[in-house]
Amino acid sequence: MRKATITLTTDFGLSDHFVGVMKGVIHRIASEASIIDITHELRTYDIAEAAFVVGETYRWWPAKTIHVVVVDPGVGTSRRPVLMEAAGQHFIAPDNGVLTVVAQREKAKVREITSRKYLLEPVSRTFHGRDIFAPCAAHLARGVRPAQFGKLIQDHLRLALGAPTRTGKRVWTGVILKVDRFGNMITNFGADEFSAIKTRPFEMAVGMEKVRRLALHYAESEPGELALIEGSSGYLEICANMASAARRVGCSAGAPLELTIW
Amino acid sequence: MRKATITLTTDFGLSDHFVGVMKGVIHRIASEASIIDITHELRTYDIAEAAFVVGETYRWWPAKTIHVVVVDPGVGTSRRPVLMEAAGQHFIAPDNGVLTVVAQREKAKVREITSRKYLLEPVSRTFHGRDIFAPCAAHLARGVRPAQFGKLIQDHLRLALGAPTRTGKRVWTGVILKVDRFGNMITNFGADEFSAIKTRPFEMAVGMEKVRRLALHYAESEPGELALIEGSSGYLEICANMASAARRVGCSAGAPLELTIW
Amino acid sequence: MRKATITLTTDFGLSDHFVGVMKGVIHRIASEASIIDITHELRTYDIAEAAFVVGETYRWWPAKTIHVVVVDPGVGTSRRPVLMEAAGQHFIAPDNGVLTVVAQREKAKVREITSRKYLLEPVSRTFHGRDIFAPCAAHLARGVRPAQFGKLIQDHLRLALGAPTRTGKRVWTGVILKVDRFGNMITNFGADEFSAIKTRPFEMAVGMEKVRRLALHYAESEPGELALIEGSSGYLEICANMASAARRVGCSAGAPLELTIW
Repeated sequence: MRKATITLTTDFGLSDHFVGVMKGVIHRIASEASIIDITHELRTYDIAEAAFVVGETYRWWPAKTIHVVVVDPGVGTSRRPVLMEAAGQHFIAPDNGVLTVVAQREKAKVREITSRKYLLEPVSRTFHGRDIFAPCAAHLARGVRPAQFGKLIQDHLRLALGAPTRTGKRVWTGVILKVDRFGNMITNFGADEFSAIKTRPFEMAVGMEKVRRLALHYAESEPGELALIEGSSGYLEICANMASAARRVGCSAGAPLELTIW
Repeated sequence: MRKATITLTTDFGLSDHFVGVMKGVIHRIASEASIIDITHELRTYDIAEAAFVVGETYRWWPAKTIHVVVVDPGVGTSRRPVLMEAAGQHFIAPDNGVLTVVAQREKAKVREITSRKYLLEPVSRTFHGRDIFAPCAAHLARGVRPAQFGKLIQDHLRLALGAPTRTGKRVWTGVILKVDRFGNMITNFGADEFSAIKTRPFEMAVGMEKVRRLALHYAESEPGELALIEGSSGYLEICANMASAARRVGCSAGAPLELTIW
Repeated sequence: MRKATITLTTDFGLSDHFVGVMKGVIHRIASEASIIDITHELRTYDIAEAAFVVGETYRWWPAKTIHVVVVDPGVGTSRRPVLMEAAGQHFIAPDNGVLTVVAQREKAKVREITSRKYLLEPVSRTFHGRDIFAPCAAHLARGVRPAQFGKLIQDHLRLALGAPTRTGKRVWTGVILKVDRFGNMITNFGADEFSAIKTRPFEMAVGMEKVRRLALHYAESEPGELALIEGSSGYLEICANMASAARRVGCSAGAPLELTIW
């Protein structure tokens, strides 16, 4: 039997005991499982960013991987814990939209975790990473079957994360999905869908700036110059060579964009 | 034989080579051991915070786990390296108080590490994580017995980390133990001991603010409103829904508190 | 066969999906390999700092370790990907100087990675960590031989990282290699080469400050007082007890130094 792998994606940061506690809980139940950090530095409470990062990450992992995702401002309320099966992998998370991108792309089966057998009792009202998500992932790693955690549901929460909207003959409005560490602004404009920018003049309006240059790689534009680039996620990105485009423009995730193609 | 697990808890941060060097030292000696990061982002030099984080973390790990804890402003002085056995687990750390909370809670046997056989020679004066703590943990993982590292001592250093003090008929003074990533202020008021706040009016004074509301979970109070909550560690916490209570109040770890219960 | 170990050293940070994607790519190809984080918090685009950190780290790892190093401002340009064998270990990186320190110290064989067999196609222009470096490391871990990746080259890029220069009878100029998390400024003055400071009066000029004190360990000087110390890397460091020397002086990596020994 192949050793199970559990990945962790949270907004818990690394200055507290939270992540170390979750790893301990997993290790105590499933000592043979590999525990791998994806990130613990997601923006606190930012469910849309979490959904984006999970959506970008899972595609590169093999079948059977168990992903634990905890960005959970509603911890302790009636929001449900869920176990999703998609792309041959498993996702354990609060039902607050963090799995939206995966569910948009894949055929997904979602169960509400209702069995109390796999939880750490008494379940606290403030740390379900420890009491629900970590132990369920560990039991899954040990071979408990998804159906044992609870029944299938159809109404799991999905965020309204959409594609750009056409607002004129030559105009589309979109949004910045995420600013990465380098200050590149990842947009929701798919590079394939908007490949017309390769052959026709265009203008991407962001904040007070207008970007008219298309670059093939980051180092191509002048230092500090803004350019549009086909990012590694398949979306158009606004970047600046060796500089933070986001700081230059003064925009962050959620800011609106307007693309005109002539 | 079950594979050994070594956890790392330091204030070394993640922008330097320190952590990578410690992992290399461990891996070279005990290549089969799992090395798991708890955190490397403890506040530099803050022994009390480290003691709190270690105290919150170890309880969730299984017997035989080896915890390496390095927050060590006195590195290179005469402060001793120690190996502590408690709760069936092992702790390797400088003898400066970082193990205080564990020693308060558990029956602990502490040895001074005096054998030079398990150190990396020549031992530097500035990086005992590499030269003492990492290799001792690795040798322990390989089966060296605790007694081989050195003799039991009784006078290991314990910080004066106390419970709240009663200062009036209805008044107790306490302290903020830690501010977590979300800005929640974890106090040293035990939720069980002060459960009277569930049924009687109370007031927690912190900085220039007075908190009079008790919440069951973070999302219960108004956005930004301060509330007291039973935290997942068993202590009362001062929180603000979707906001940093610590930034709102302007206090950090070590700040005094005064609780009045009528 | 001993389980392969792959370490990761990047400037990708921990708030994005990049690291999680690289780990997924490795895990899918070489599920048995251990993946160990060295750091992902290198200064963005800072090749000299990366070269220093890699040079400090690899020495403590055993033979056969595979180090993936990605600080890569030129991603997508004609800069080559390389596989270096040195000290019995393997290094996979862009050919931009990040392996300079290792190549200075060890007998190194460097190959340009030209075989497309081990890449993730189509190779993007912006994320070679995912498309080239991670999959090559994973295939190496599975037993592909170095020669299968490409031919030996002699002209791999080396930075001009030098020792201090003698500029007067009693004077040498050098540079700050790195500021660590504690604010210690690691210089390029080797402690052995400049051991004369132990017995003769000296003065290290840095920014507007002059350091004349030699300390044996960090805790020896007065709180906040600047001192020179033999660091754990074998270089002289400028430190301040329980305080950031770099903040006190206002200098960062790359700043010039002048040492006078009488």
